[in-house]
Amino acid sequence: MQQITGGVTAAKGFKAACCEANIKYKNRTDMAMVISEVPCECAGTFTTNVVKAACVQWDQKVVYGGGKLQAVVVNSGIANACTGKEGWDACEATAAAVEKELNIPAATVAVASTGVIGMQLPVEKLTNGVAMMSKTLDGSLEAGTAASKAIMTTDTINKEVAVTFEIGGKTITLGGMSKGSGMIHPNMCTMLGFLSTDLAIEKALMQEALSAVVKDTFNMITVDGDTSTNDTLLLMANGMAGNDVITEKNADYDAFVEALNFVCTYLARRMAGDGEGATKLFEAHVINAKSKEDARTLSRAIVGSNLSKAAIYGCDANFGRFLCAMGYSGVQFDQNDVELFFVSKAGKLQVFKFGTPLDFDEEFAVKIMKESEVTVFVDMHEGTEEACAWGCDLTYDYVKINADYRS
Amino acid sequence: MQQITGGVTAAKGFKAACCEANIKYKNRTDMAMVISEVPCECAGTFTTNVVKAACVQWDQKVVYGGGKLQAVVVNSGIANACTGKEGWDACEATAAAVEKELNIPAATVAVASTGVIGMQLPVEKLTNGVAMMSKTLDGSLEAGTAASKAIMTTDTINKEVAVTFEIGGKTITLGGMSKGSGMIHPNMCTMLGFLSTDLAIEKALMQEALSAVVKDTFNMITVDGDTSTNDTLLLMANGMAGNDVITEKNADYDAFVEALNFVCTYLARRMAGDGEGATKLFEAHVINAKSKEDARTLSRAIVGSNLSKAAIYGCDANFGRFLCAMGYSGVQFDQNDVELFFVSKAGKLQVFKFGTPLDFDEEFAVKIMKESEVTVFVDMHEGTEEACAWGCDLTYDYVKINADYRS
Repeated sequence: MQQITGGVTAAKGFKAACCEANIKYKNRTDMAMVISEVPCECAGTFTTNVVKAACVQWDQKVVYGGGKLQAVVVNSGIANACTGKEGWDACEATAAAVEKELNIPAATVAVASTGVIGMQLPVEKLTNGVAMMSKTLDGSLEAGTAASKAIMTTDTINKEVAVTFEIGGKTITLGGMSKGSGMIHPNMCTMLGFLSTDLAIEKALMQEALSAVVKDTFNMITVDGDTSTNDTLLLMANGMAGNDVITEKNADYDAFVEALNFVCTYLARRMAGDGEGATKLFEAHVINAKSKEDARTLSRAIVGSNLSKAAIYGCDANFGRFLCAMGYSGVQFDQNDVELFFVSKAGKLQVFKFGTPLDFDEEFAVKIMKESEVTVFVDMHEGTEEACAWGCDLTYDYVKINADYRS
Repeated sequence: MQQITGGVTAAKGFKAACCEANIKYKNRTDMAMVISEVPCECAGTFTTNVVKAACVQWDQKVVYGGGKLQAVVVNSGIANACTGKEGWDACEATAAAVEKELNIPAATVAVASTGVIGMQLPVEKLTNGVAMMSKTLDGSLEAGTAASKAIMTTDTINKEVAVTFEIGGKTITLGGMSKGSGMIHPNMCTMLGFLSTDLAIEKALMQEALSAVVKDTFNMITVDGDTSTNDTLLLMANGMAGNDVITEKNADYDAFVEALNFVCTYLARRMAGDGEGATKLFEAHVINAKSKEDARTLSRAIVGSNLSKAAIYGCDANFGRFLCAMGYSGVQFDQNDVELFFVSKAGKLQVFKFGTPLDFDEEFAVKIMKESEVTVFVDMHEGTEEACAWGCDLTYDYVKINADYRS
């Protein structure tokens, strides 16, 4: 497997476009469209929030209905959540516009929105946007990059990635883009993500792979503990690489899962590090836990704690906060078994050992924590399972962004 | 029932003292002691964090061991959590010092600590503090107030309250003090609280009353979602009011529960409104939920959301964030049943009705949200149960306080 330049248009047969539809933002692109030349097998995972945006309900119908997927239309600025029947009608109108412009059946069009909750989408601007984008669809890497920028809200960097790998002598490409900066929390993390591949694979297997990979990637990031109404991750596979269709869990399937895991981890870490107001990527790595689920829960609790996040921001090796977060996570453990370290490019420092705080070099601790990626490394000494979770520090800017986001 | 001036020394036979022990803070009082002239029946509730401070483990032995309680020694500055055997020894030494100075058996002495986790207590300063305080114990209201100030950490106001009520012609007094500003989250909320009464009541009944009242008071507040290692609430009843001992759930018991509920609600609200960096008390009031537990969960999710808290700070009627928080709380409901209002002294404004956002007067919304106490009022239209939760806004100062708390 090899990382290559590009994103959602890297795989064969995928094209993208974007435009300034003036949904809510001015003077920037705020709509994107991704299409495949041929219908795709698809898989998806969606928010677990019971208040689901209209577009999530729409996409669940498309993806779980058993049909194909050929186009995705995304807007930023307004989330189309808490919008009642009018919100559903906006999804329908968008899909109908794609059918009209591109002759792609509305039932194979997914829609996604991100932005303010509780505001109606301007339908005419949406359908005008679809018309504009239909004329500029393009399979270049630049078109993919432009699309990844159009779906940003408070994100400060666009997120895209692509890889190639071999299956039966054919080169397969898998690429994708995502956005997410606030309202980011596992289950599934609060985000939009769109992955495209030219792999040929059965739908059920693809869904199984995506659901499994999401658990250890997108569901392991948190910015603020708020699981959004709009989380959507879609994977489209158009089969244009020409490999024999994957129909069972063999070595080919494993190669695909490896690539999928790489792509999702890459995008997830990028989102965590670009959390609203963040200055750092904050990683928790828990090893030797009793179970995989314990390892996940503990690592998520660490990166999810406001007090831990503030300590990371302040470069304060206040390790008690991390232990405290582990303690209220719901996992049962004995603090006398635990070792805790701070790790970054600058070095590794143990601060807690088997129930007792250690004397440590505060200056060295600050040096470690000043790096742009800081890891809290915990050895539970209770089993063999491990997990990583990713978040970011809590800063003045997070508050600033969210105190006046809507206005 | 009537509110009166005073706090932990309001009830008959209780005395308090405090001193500058220089545990960690300089030039302020940082130790307090409360004693009863006679041994007390006692009840307590403690943190659910599995990483429990040494003092919590000590107090659980005292309270749940079935014996009496006659003195409580509290320090601020260092939490005595994650401190191993040395931490336990510090509790033992403190209790032993009380026995030596006041002839109160060490087994009837509770200890409590609040402050930095993972740092050892200076034992000699503690025992010196006990010696100093033993000489200045005083039953005046001023002594109670001084004690409530000595236990503060990042609190900006001290918290105390007292009430009287009648049982069988006897006037009963119930008073208390508490502290708590950061690491505040239900189960049980992160705090220290000390309640004293001259009521005569059986231990088991008293524990039942306290556990029940805590559910709707201290466990309904959150500042930052971090459940501390040190949460402790102790209730001492010395029986000196002279009433017939309450041995069953009769009208007398109900009068006591009413008073206990008032005192705990008062202290809980004071803690929420004095959350670290807070400028406002943020209340969520959920009515007509399917079950009491649903009502509690929904209201806690609202006040616990960072995004909701930032919107409250910014006076932004961004109601989607409150619905979003309800949606990920774990409670199942249909957004089409829900109505949502903003309420304060300035008025009441509906913003969401049965799945659809309403057009509303933004200026009026800002006016409502600028008050120092703001309520999000939600009618679920699904049942008859209700609950209130209390929190505070998320501000720059919360980040500031916690980015450099330890240094």
